[in-house]
Amino acid sequence: QPTSAAAPSHLKIALVPGDGIGPEVVAEAEKVLDAVTGAAGVTVEKTEFGLGAQHWLDTGETLTDRTLDELRAHDAILFGAVGAAPGDRRVPSGIIERDVLLKMRFSLDHFVNLRPSRLFPGTTSPLSDPGDIDFVVVREGTEGPYAGNGGVLRGGTDAEIATEVSLNTAHGVRRLVRYAFQLAAVRERRKLTLVHKHNVLVNAGRLYARLVEEVGAEFPGVTVDYLHVDAATIFLTTDPARFDVIVTDNLFGDILTDLAGAVTGGIGLSPAGNINADRTAPSMFEPVHGSAPDIAGQQRANPVAAILATAMMLEHLGLAGPAARIEAAVQQDLAAHGNESRTTAQVGDGVLAALA
Amino acid sequence: QPTSAAAPSHLKIALVPGDGIGPEVVAEAEKVLDAVTGAAGVTVEKTEFGLGAQHWLDTGETLTDRTLDELRAHDAILFGAVGAAPGDRRVPSGIIERDVLLKMRFSLDHFVNLRPSRLFPGTTSPLSDPGDIDFVVVREGTEGPYAGNGGVLRGGTDAEIATEVSLNTAHGVRRLVRYAFQLAAVRERRKLTLVHKHNVLVNAGRLYARLVEEVGAEFPGVTVDYLHVDAATIFLTTDPARFDVIVTDNLFGDILTDLAGAVTGGIGLSPAGNINADRTAPSMFEPVHGSAPDIAGQQRANPVAAILATAMMLEHLGLAGPAARIEAAVQQDLAAHGNESRTTAQVGDGVLAALA
Ligand SMILES: CC(C)[C@H](C(=O)O)[C@@H](O)C(=O)O
Ligand SMILES: CC(C)[C@H](C(=O)O)[C@@H](O)C(=O)O
Repeated sequence: QPTSAAAPSHLKIALVPGDGIGPEVVAEAEKVLDAVTGAAGVTVEKTEFGLGAQHWLDTGETLTDRTLDELRAHDAILFGAVGAAPGDRRVPSGIIERDVLLKMRFSLDHFVNLRPSRLFPGTTSPLSDPGDIDFVVVREGTEGPYAGNGGVLRGGTDAEIATEVSLNTAHGVRRLVRYAFQLAAVRERRKLTLVHKHNVLVNAGRLYARLVEEVGAEFPGVTVDYLHVDAATIFLTTDPARFDVIVTDNLFGDILTDLAGAVTGGIGLSPAGNINADRTAPSMFEPVHGSAPDIAGQQRANPVAAILATAMMLEHLGLAGPAARIEAAVQQDLAAHGNESRTTAQVGDGVLAALA
Repeated sequence: QPTSAAAPSHLKIALVPGDGIGPEVVAEAEKVLDAVTGAAGVTVEKTEFGLGAQHWLDTGETLTDRTLDELRAHDAILFGAVGAAPGDRRVPSGIIERDVLLKMRFSLDHFVNLRPSRLFPGTTSPLSDPGDIDFVVVREGTEGPYAGNGGVLRGGTDAEIATEVSLNTAHGVRRLVRYAFQLAAVRERRKLTLVHKHNVLVNAGRLYARLVEEVGAEFPGVTVDYLHVDAATIFLTTDPARFDVIVTDNLFGDILTDLAGAVTGGIGLSPAGNINADRTAPSMFEPVHGSAPDIAGQQRANPVAAILATAMMLEHLGLAGPAARIEAAVQQDLAAHGNESRTTAQVGDGVLAALA
């Protein structure tokens, strides 16, 4: 990763198992975390935080300032998933997403939402000829259409007007784009693709284009191209191997990374880092998938995304060696057992066995 | 289609071949149009309009009020594609898209952007198991993030703020949603899926959800469900056959229909109708693909999307019989020759032969 920390000997990790399948996948991630840090002589102090729909039902609290302060005292946050069952009327629609997940991203300034996509051996893509997929989406995390700006006039009437305002700043886009170039510069193919829709969203689109050009001048070794978001979805299904680093806005990144997860065999394998690259607050690492209440408690969830999120976390914290060990173990386990039907714990144990 | 016109005996069609491959594909569409209308005893009066990048270079005009008035005097518009080559510095970026294509949609109140997706026999999907794909996206065409609202403060500086405002109205959403329900009600599966992102875009998302609920009450025979846009991209690659009618906003519809085109074998096969369902102005029918300047004039473009757009146009004009004949001929031709490499004219002639 672009900014690297000195290798620590002690880590304070905030664990947020959350709702649904969150606790199950985090349990496996913990096993793997313990194994690689133990082997590297790094001690890990874990503090568990209750957050999510169940926590809201129990306490009436989403993510309080007190909890945010406590989280700030940690080196990183390992997150499972939050969210009530879709039909659960006790939890107001969207409140957990906005007041926990997005609030955390905005409060801790997680301006880089880093989402790697790889097609692992032993996994099946819905594409008949996926090629060698290995790209990273660098999604903006703290502005754009996610700013929560907009409103309603004459709500509930036939004259209602509802607006959503996408806010984009040179400050926010420049630091995102810089991170993306730094990442592209250390990757093998050194290619950066800006994805936007600047023929329609001219204001935000031009800002992104300008800053990619400006920052790109500092990275002459990186090849730059541009795709409209609609065209990008086509290439993600017809030739995903063409991509290396994709830099894009918050909403486009949301859409493209779910699609990327699908073409690489499912979001059960996709990790994400919500990264404060200035390191002014702890970063948060999570599987891209949600809480999947329909299969919760049944040991049917795939913990690979959570385990790979753990590797991203360790890499961010300066432990590239242990991170690489996890990735190699996951690859080995998937190559051997990828298509077998296994319990959540069996997958975790498989990765542990591959580590040994 | 929901609102049907009485079968006419004479049609006034505005033809806009446009740029790049536009003229080539429109030429084939014309052949097919002439054949089926001739057989049905319908006379067609065609007027060609110069619009697009080349027209702009020649005249300095995009889409003038005079041309709009002339277009209004027609029953429908058959459109090829517009747009300069990506690197062409003589044409300001985005001007043709916004000042021709979008201006036409907004000026003629094309509030339904109708985009059917089918996997035709003889065509190859990039998915290994696509299933029986047959759905229609009912995309909003005259508001949302396409409203051209937003701006720039402190442009070009490190303190720049760029905004994009998505405008959504009960007026605009209700008529769109009503059209989608009317369409779903006459389709075999009678299923409507609202796609939005109401957990983040709460204002616009709630408006869509409210109107789907309200209008849906008039259509008890139609099953309704909801997907976030990110999840919708997953299902479009893992199980596209699940969809019947998708109703969604302007930008989400743009993204989803390119993806839908990709999974059904390429946007060279995807037609679109820009429909004024109130019939206060002529509707416009076009292939979803662009002007593809890189292959222009080489007879390499696939005219199927333009030919299917012609069928949509005829159906809209009350000529369901001739429209169905075109669709059957395209299916027959694709089943026989789908994977062969043919010139643009050979495909057109193949469809003509299948008609005969
Ligand atoms: C749950 C939702 C708010 C979130 C997002 O849209 O960012 C999720 O889809 C994601 O991608 O992490
Ligand atoms: C060219 C562009 C403005 C247009 C759009 O975004 O609507 C195109 O992508 C389409 O889908 O018709």
